[in-house]
Amino acid sequence: MWRCEELGAVSEEEGRLTRTFASAAMGKANALVGGWMKGAGLETRVDAAFNLLGRWTCGKRGAKTLLLGSHLDTVRDAGKYDGPLGVLVALAAVEVLRARGVALPFHVEIAGFSDEEGVRYQTTYLGSRALAGTLTRADLARVEEKGIEKAKRKRGEFLGYAEVHIEQGPVLEQCGLAVGVVTGIAGQSRLRVTFQGEAGHAGTVPMALRRDALAAAAEFVLAVEKCGLTATVGQLQVRPGASNVIPGEVELTLDVRDLRDAKRRAAVQALKKQAQAIGRRRKVKAVWTPVQDTAAVACDFALTELMCEAVVAQEREVISLPSGAGHDAAALSQICPVAMLFVRCKRGISHHPAESVKTSDVAKAIAVMVEFMEKLGARYA
Amino acid sequence: MWRCEELGAVSEEEGRLTRTFASAAMGKANALVGGWMKGAGLETRVDAAFNLLGRWTCGKRGAKTLLLGSHLDTVRDAGKYDGPLGVLVALAAVEVLRARGVALPFHVEIAGFSDEEGVRYQTTYLGSRALAGTLTRADLARVEEKGIEKAKRKRGEFLGYAEVHIEQGPVLEQCGLAVGVVTGIAGQSRLRVTFQGEAGHAGTVPMALRRDALAAAAEFVLAVEKCGLTATVGQLQVRPGASNVIPGEVELTLDVRDLRDAKRRAAVQALKKQAQAIGRRRKVKAVWTPVQDTAAVACDFALTELMCEAVVAQEREVISLPSGAGHDAAALSQICPVAMLFVRCKRGISHHPAESVKTSDVAKAIAVMVEFMEKLGARYA
Repeated sequence: MWRCEELGAVSEEEGRLTRTFASAAMGKANALVGGWMKGAGLETRVDAAFNLLGRWTCGKRGAKTLLLGSHLDTVRDAGKYDGPLGVLVALAAVEVLRARGVALPFHVEIAGFSDEEGVRYQTTYLGSRALAGTLTRADLARVEEKGIEKAKRKRGEFLGYAEVHIEQGPVLEQCGLAVGVVTGIAGQSRLRVTFQGEAGHAGTVPMALRRDALAAAAEFVLAVEKCGLTATVGQLQVRPGASNVIPGEVELTLDVRDLRDAKRRAAVQALKKQAQAIGRRRKVKAVWTPVQDTAAVACDFALTELMCEAVVAQEREVISLPSGAGHDAAALSQICPVAMLFVRCKRGISHHPAESVKTSDVAKAIAVMVEFMEKLGARYA
Repeated sequence: MWRCEELGAVSEEEGRLTRTFASAAMGKANALVGGWMKGAGLETRVDAAFNLLGRWTCGKRGAKTLLLGSHLDTVRDAGKYDGPLGVLVALAAVEVLRARGVALPFHVEIAGFSDEEGVRYQTTYLGSRALAGTLTRADLARVEEKGIEKAKRKRGEFLGYAEVHIEQGPVLEQCGLAVGVVTGIAGQSRLRVTFQGEAGHAGTVPMALRRDALAAAAEFVLAVEKCGLTATVGQLQVRPGASNVIPGEVELTLDVRDLRDAKRRAAVQALKKQAQAIGRRRKVKAVWTPVQDTAAVACDFALTELMCEAVVAQEREVISLPSGAGHDAAALSQICPVAMLFVRCKRGISHHPAESVKTSDVAKAIAVMVEFMEKLGARYA
């Protein structure tokens, strides 16, 4: 917890926490965490993509590597735990195992990834995708720092990746549990929907003659809420937007997430039909513009089972929950099995200075990671 | 129609029509229209409140005055007909009567009021209220030009006020009629309603745990649409307003208009209860802030009947409709009976350069006003 505090003071902006890809603040953060890693006996380096790596080598011949970690970059005006907690819990768990003199039958490497939030280049997972070797030409063209693709690691090097992260949602708090096991990272559809009606004088156009774009949008917002999946209208703009003018046009965003890609895409299609039906009935044109479609990432069944077993000793109940937000694990899932553990956070708040976790919950997360590595070691022994 | 064109070119802004209270452009407009009035044989002057007045004095002793007219100021980037048409139709009707040698048993005065739109001081009816003697101290304190209250006319001087105005709505067009008789000017409630829920991550907060301010507002928008009166939500702002954040707060405007004040106020109270019920059900706070409550103005029964009779010869059908927008007639209703005639305008568009009327409709409006004055003369003879 004191490491989270100390790391939380390393920022590129005064008075608030902001650490973006390849910034001076990130250099300082890597030096600080790298120092703690070295103190724990790890071989430490920063790779070509600014990822901090700390390695605990085992003596076994031809051993693979278990990768642990999360990211050290932040959003602007961030909290102290989104990212760093996963790196520091992994480090603490390794410290426990080394202090106990445990010898694992695989190498352990802790990564502090350099770009999960994507603030600097509006990309995602620059650091972990560089390591996974999945950067695109478009990524490389966009990034000023040259050679980050050299961070790519060998195929088959990793036996798995396990990430601890704050939940960023209220489910664990509602259930009264310190930790929960992640089933997968939801796929996401992002769209822009525009309703085009006709503006008019709020006093002189009779209700029956109106083509009110906001009334159409309101029906759609309620349809989105009832669609059965996790779906949100987060932006909505009314034009012209005067108190005495009937809305002529409304533009809104739609965000739909689910672990089941087919179900998500079907729900989006159903909503499109509903928007069109609302539009037909009201003589309002509904314009449907897909912005992004990201497939879901399933966590590995065997690793996740092991994580569940590790939770048993710490919690009265093991709950499995999907992750609605993206994580570095999504990038790593391209090259190895992944598992994730969520830690309860206060009121589900993240991306905000009010982000908060309990010390006792973090202790449980560390204990789970210790147990997880021991169980995995037993399997490989 | 050519007078509308010529007057439409008198503007304080290049490339678009804007004429505000006491501006140089208004001085030019008064001089232009005043010249036409003089040409028609009227005694012409500009009063202390910048109203242009043209008077046709009758020989009868102790005669009262029939006031005709509308306003010569405009909104920014206005059309050519909202206001000026009423002044110029009145002038044309007086020209017809004088050309025919008709002698009326009352004086006729045509007013080109100086401030109906209230662009300069965010007031309404400065010109016509100065003439009616209903300016408040607050008005006088706000207005730079001193002494405008001297435009006040004698009590009992006017036998009535009749105003021609474009409809600013689509009803006459829908009915296929050139003109319609106005029953009254609707009263108006203006309010600000805020729904305060809780912002959250669009991917991680389960639907059942959300307190989505926009979903609450959407229900309210549909309740407004169904309230039975002319009611509009014209502004709606979502905070924080990001595609991946559940809306925490929504602020919207409510505008309700009706000729029946009691019914309007009851509808607003019913909507308040609905907002609170929506809020309770969704654990979203509904904050209700009244902004303005303006009483309805009824047109005079006798004058309006006469106007209807005058329409009969011009149209296959006489329709009566309320005015959802305010007019100088509202100010004059404080000191004399008022009547209004609406002229069809293209697609109901006003306050926009696309404002448009048909020449044949304007001819009918002139004929109606001629007939109206003759009928009124017959009554007073």
